[in-house]
Amino acid sequence: MTNDYRPMWTGLGLNLEAHDALLKVLGEAYQGTFLSQKNHPEGMSYFDFVMSEVHGLRIKELQDVRSEGRKVVGTFCVFVPDELILATDAISVGLCAGAEFGFDEAERFLPRNTCSLIKSFFGFKLNRVCPYIEATDLLVGETTCDGKKKAYEIFKAIQPNLYVMEVPQMKTAQDRALLKSEYLRFKEELERLTGVVITAERLKRGIQLVNSRRKALSRLAVLRAADPAPISGLDALLINQVAFYDDPVRFTDAVNKICDELEGRVGAGEGVVPQGAPRILLSGCPMAVPNWKLPAIIENAGGVIVGEESCVGERGIRNLVDDNGGDVDTLMEAIVGRYFKIDCAIFTPNPERLDHVMDMVARYHADGVIHYALQFCSPYMVESYRVEQELSSRGIPALRIETDYSQEDAGQLRTRVEAFLEMIRK
Amino acid sequence: MTNDYRPMWTGLGLNLEAHDALLKVLGEAYQGTFLSQKNHPEGMSYFDFVMSEVHGLRIKELQDVRSEGRKVVGTFCVFVPDELILATDAISVGLCAGAEFGFDEAERFLPRNTCSLIKSFFGFKLNRVCPYIEATDLLVGETTCDGKKKAYEIFKAIQPNLYVMEVPQMKTAQDRALLKSEYLRFKEELERLTGVVITAERLKRGIQLVNSRRKALSRLAVLRAADPAPISGLDALLINQVAFYDDPVRFTDAVNKICDELEGRVGAGEGVVPQGAPRILLSGCPMAVPNWKLPAIIENAGGVIVGEESCVGERGIRNLVDDNGGDVDTLMEAIVGRYFKIDCAIFTPNPERLDHVMDMVARYHADGVIHYALQFCSPYMVESYRVEQELSSRGIPALRIETDYSQEDAGQLRTRVEAFLEMIRK
Repeated sequence: MTNDYRPMWTGLGLNLEAHDALLKVLGEAYQGTFLSQKNHPEGMSYFDFVMSEVHGLRIKELQDVRSEGRKVVGTFCVFVPDELILATDAISVGLCAGAEFGFDEAERFLPRNTCSLIKSFFGFKLNRVCPYIEATDLLVGETTCDGKKKAYEIFKAIQPNLYVMEVPQMKTAQDRALLKSEYLRFKEELERLTGVVITAERLKRGIQLVNSRRKALSRLAVLRAADPAPISGLDALLINQVAFYDDPVRFTDAVNKICDELEGRVGAGEGVVPQGAPRILLSGCPMAVPNWKLPAIIENAGGVIVGEESCVGERGIRNLVDDNGGDVDTLMEAIVGRYFKIDCAIFTPNPERLDHVMDMVARYHADGVIHYALQFCSPYMVESYRVEQELSSRGIPALRIETDYSQEDAGQLRTRVEAFLEMIRK
Repeated sequence: MTNDYRPMWTGLGLNLEAHDALLKVLGEAYQGTFLSQKNHPEGMSYFDFVMSEVHGLRIKELQDVRSEGRKVVGTFCVFVPDELILATDAISVGLCAGAEFGFDEAERFLPRNTCSLIKSFFGFKLNRVCPYIEATDLLVGETTCDGKKKAYEIFKAIQPNLYVMEVPQMKTAQDRALLKSEYLRFKEELERLTGVVITAERLKRGIQLVNSRRKALSRLAVLRAADPAPISGLDALLINQVAFYDDPVRFTDAVNKICDELEGRVGAGEGVVPQGAPRILLSGCPMAVPNWKLPAIIENAGGVIVGEESCVGERGIRNLVDDNGGDVDTLMEAIVGRYFKIDCAIFTPNPERLDHVMDMVARYHADGVIHYALQFCSPYMVESYRVEQELSSRGIPALRIETDYSQEDAGQLRTRVEAFLEMIRK
């Protein structure tokens, strides 16, 4: 990092010693996983820079913005509509954490049998190593899974500015009404927090900002249908991860810029892997920074990931919000309509997700699907059975992986992934 | 059992060999756990008989009733309103299973990290050893926890007459509307199944039947406040378990009869344990037949369980439904109002449950609380932290147990429970 951010971190209450340790691990992981890749596109330099400054410059920007009276809202889930947050001129940042850090402390509050993602945000908070949590004026949790839903109750005692939003579990008209009612309640909460009244004009701008980001990310996704793929799955995942932290306008420009470069590659038939390398669709749980374990194993073994059927990936970005409405209620309806389509495994039944996995396999010419579930994530763990069944019935190779944030199973995963790629190659 | 039920079981498609093995284990467990107790009340002979005929006479009754054209509805949760089922002259039976049976088969469909209760109903079905499931015209699941919600999707492929009801996760007006809408949908489903239109008169009768059962069980609960307790926790639990299977009128009479006997005991200062034996409140997950492991350990160690803060216990029976309404909508509103008060750990936040635990400790003069959670049951596992915190802040001894349906941890549990009772005695 270019500046001395230590006074800022101290001001945010971080534990500098633990934070140094985290940054060291993060930096090494990034170096080893990303910067050593072959044919790293030039346009990745922006995202490499963002990552190198993820706890530095970006936090400084947040603090600068806060000093002007604007607010920062932290979220844990793609069900929280960024459109509303941006409509108030607040900044939205994703708070899901992807590192095994502070799990011992987390387990003082939570059952051992809790997924790594939840333990991780507890661990980051309890160890005071996450400048985002500390720079946040409002944290937004949601009732997606049992683990998060109940863990937020304990988290609120540690982090009183936590707000919890309910997400329905089915897709009936009554469920849609519940989601709308929750989005209206959230809108009021944001208006109270920021002192800004969300007008149709503001809401439209919020929708357009997020739509532009989604369009750019979808443009990137589509380019990966080419054989050879013009960008590694690791790089594409990183871009999707950065989407949760970065300024949306600057980010969207950077994504479009790298897409221009990648279009050149596709046109020239160039790629990051030899043509014919096994093309893998990753499907399942979200991967938060720096959770790159499985993608790194897949790509180091000679596969290339051509799509992520995940919240940090296509589940988070597909479907735009109609911005044609002229009044707040019409625009709110459009927002509800878009988010109500999300095919997260928390819904029952959830046939849309199976359809979407099959659709992605076809669109991105995937040779096989690796289903990734965090251990103790019941919704995705249970649903993986049906995903595998559906894939098998169509003769599409599938591998189900259950893992966590530790490195303990890396060797075993490598063996399984290599065998899977070998099977595809034959 | 008094009759040869084998032709009936064969007719229901049971696997007789596996079923014989199950009945043998069940019979031995019942003999060892219940019939060896001291001061077993005479009124328990009815429930002992019911248990001895649980797969025999009761199933024959269901089949006889079905041959008359009436229907049997199986349920997995106290959120499914028996009032509606009884209003159609259908019979309601609880299908939660409490034995480690067929887990290997269940794990072909479900993650290993699934709670025993879910694995158990899968195992019973896959091994064809549960005559209740096979004698059921409609099975009703619900979206209470992630595990059940998602497992039902897989179960439906095995058991097509499964119907799933949504249960909300918060307690806002919108959540109440969702629950009401789901109860109205269920009412329509029952009307379709049975061909019976649920009139105000029928609904009132259903409400009164269930209220009478709840009143009798509450009468039993209150008697356990006496010191010495007039009935063991095991016997009281068994009565609560039988409530899910038995004919409600006959059952209610039998409960009131044993209450008469127990009132005599209380008046005479007689009990099942010496005065001063450690009085334990059990709090947490439901215990389905034959899940008697932890209560048996507690009472064999010299404690006496004086209340169950559980769905098979006070969470399932408290609060009556107002039966004063003159029309279906008013009665439906009363039903929704009663069930919406249930303080299951699936709700967030759920302060009512903490209050209720404290209230039960006071009312039943408990010396300590043992919180029981099934392994991988996130809602109760996570909430147990706050239950323990609240108890500790009031100086009430608390012990948190996480277990499953196996006997492997019985020795370890015994040691922990004995130490806990010893601590209370001092």
